[in-house]
Amino acid sequence: MVGKKQGLNMTDMNYSGTYKAALVVIGNEILTGRTQDTHTQWIGEKLLKHGIVLCEARTLPDNEDKIVSTVNALRAEFDYVFTTGGIGPTHDDITAQSIAKAFGVPIENNGEAYELLVKQYGADQVTPARARMALIPVGASLIPNPVSGAPGFAMENVYVMAGVPRIMHAMFDHVLDGLQKGKPVLSRTIMCGLPESVVAEKLSSIQAQYPGVEIGSYPNYRDGKPHVSFVLRSTDEASLEKATEDTAQMVRAHGKEPVMS
Amino acid sequence: MVGKKQGLNMTDMNYSGTYKAALVVIGNEILTGRTQDTHTQWIGEKLLKHGIVLCEARTLPDNEDKIVSTVNALRAEFDYVFTTGGIGPTHDDITAQSIAKAFGVPIENNGEAYELLVKQYGADQVTPARARMALIPVGASLIPNPVSGAPGFAMENVYVMAGVPRIMHAMFDHVLDGLQKGKPVLSRTIMCGLPESVVAEKLSSIQAQYPGVEIGSYPNYRDGKPHVSFVLRSTDEASLEKATEDTAQMVRAHGKEPVMS
Repeated sequence: MVGKKQGLNMTDMNYSGTYKAALVVIGNEILTGRTQDTHTQWIGEKLLKHGIVLCEARTLPDNEDKIVSTVNALRAEFDYVFTTGGIGPTHDDITAQSIAKAFGVPIENNGEAYELLVKQYGADQVTPARARMALIPVGASLIPNPVSGAPGFAMENVYVMAGVPRIMHAMFDHVLDGLQKGKPVLSRTIMCGLPESVVAEKLSSIQAQYPGVEIGSYPNYRDGKPHVSFVLRSTDEASLEKATEDTAQMVRAHGKEPVMS
Repeated sequence: MVGKKQGLNMTDMNYSGTYKAALVVIGNEILTGRTQDTHTQWIGEKLLKHGIVLCEARTLPDNEDKIVSTVNALRAEFDYVFTTGGIGPTHDDITAQSIAKAFGVPIENNGEAYELLVKQYGADQVTPARARMALIPVGASLIPNPVSGAPGFAMENVYVMAGVPRIMHAMFDHVLDGLQKGKPVLSRTIMCGLPESVVAEKLSSIQAQYPGVEIGSYPNYRDGKPHVSFVLRSTDEASLEKATEDTAQMVRAHGKEPVMS
């Protein structure tokens, strides 16, 4: 069994036998440049090894209408939707109420979540602000938070996690354990000291020959000279090896030694 | 004169007197985790100083349908849309054709762009692959590329730039020079060694008192102990100073010395 939107295509990440996911990073601090997002990279890389492909990531402000419309669009389109941020105790934490609105359910004091807060802070220290973190949409299941108590939650295929990296990582690992997974996406990288335009035509013909392998070409500069990395990805190891060898051969034909990794 | 979607709100970045922008980062390499995106932070921070607020960022795969639908949604919603990535010479560079499709115009060999490639590579070195980089939607104006010749382009309020950071930075600075700008968004930061939940209620009342100032609360851990940073932003310096002083006073009332920056 595989997920939504299957089919092979050269460059749009439709790897055969994988599930498709989207990430919603919630928080003005990312959009103002105050905080460098690292969740997209961390989650994208981790999912891929488990046959789940991160196909889109959106960074949103702490805006209820935006969160509602975005989550509703993405949960219909993808197998899994992950959100990070906005589930703390302050006035700018509006993710839980937004998710409830997206699903058209009320938000309620969740007894299980409240007990987790009591365990974390002590019964007399669950202030009204902290108690906000036990307000969870009706019908959600909790995602444990081993770092600071206040849980995330899951509604259908939407997984709502904290924004603080060490908390998000722990929540994500817990969520990942319970997800249906696809074929791992394998990758090979070939680096060489050529400008990508020199090999673009040949590379395109290799891509056409291996429709089940996705070939990306990423130019960069080293000491002011053009280099390029070719990244080949597939869930089919045999095709991947053949396409990689053809690409390496193409580099050698231009008088350069491919550096494989 | 100010841009689309004006109005004050506590947490959704609707700073008075600013323009609104969206960023589309195009490239599978970001979604697979191979490459850490740094464009969102760099662009978001820079825009804010010029009274343009980055209100949404989306990372997309190299997928024509996705790029078309996303760019069309965002260019209707925001004053400015910036895209990065996918304008090189290889088969996975499909941004220019996608933008043409989004605007419903043909893509053509742009004489001015072709001349730039001739100047960069020499007339006999403009291979068919390199010539692809002169294919520009009809009606676009070029964005110069002082690093490697091949230009970006602008169509109405959409600015299409390269993905390689040093090229994107040069293109962006050129684009920014020509944009209509709003009131600069000013910010103040207060750090303290308190858990955010302790001050959440008071902070909420300060937020309610200053609707033209946006107050964000960002928890973190230092040596395992909870800290919090309050970030206050506004285009109105007088309100910003007052709200900052009230927030600092709130921290002192809890027996901690606020660290301002």
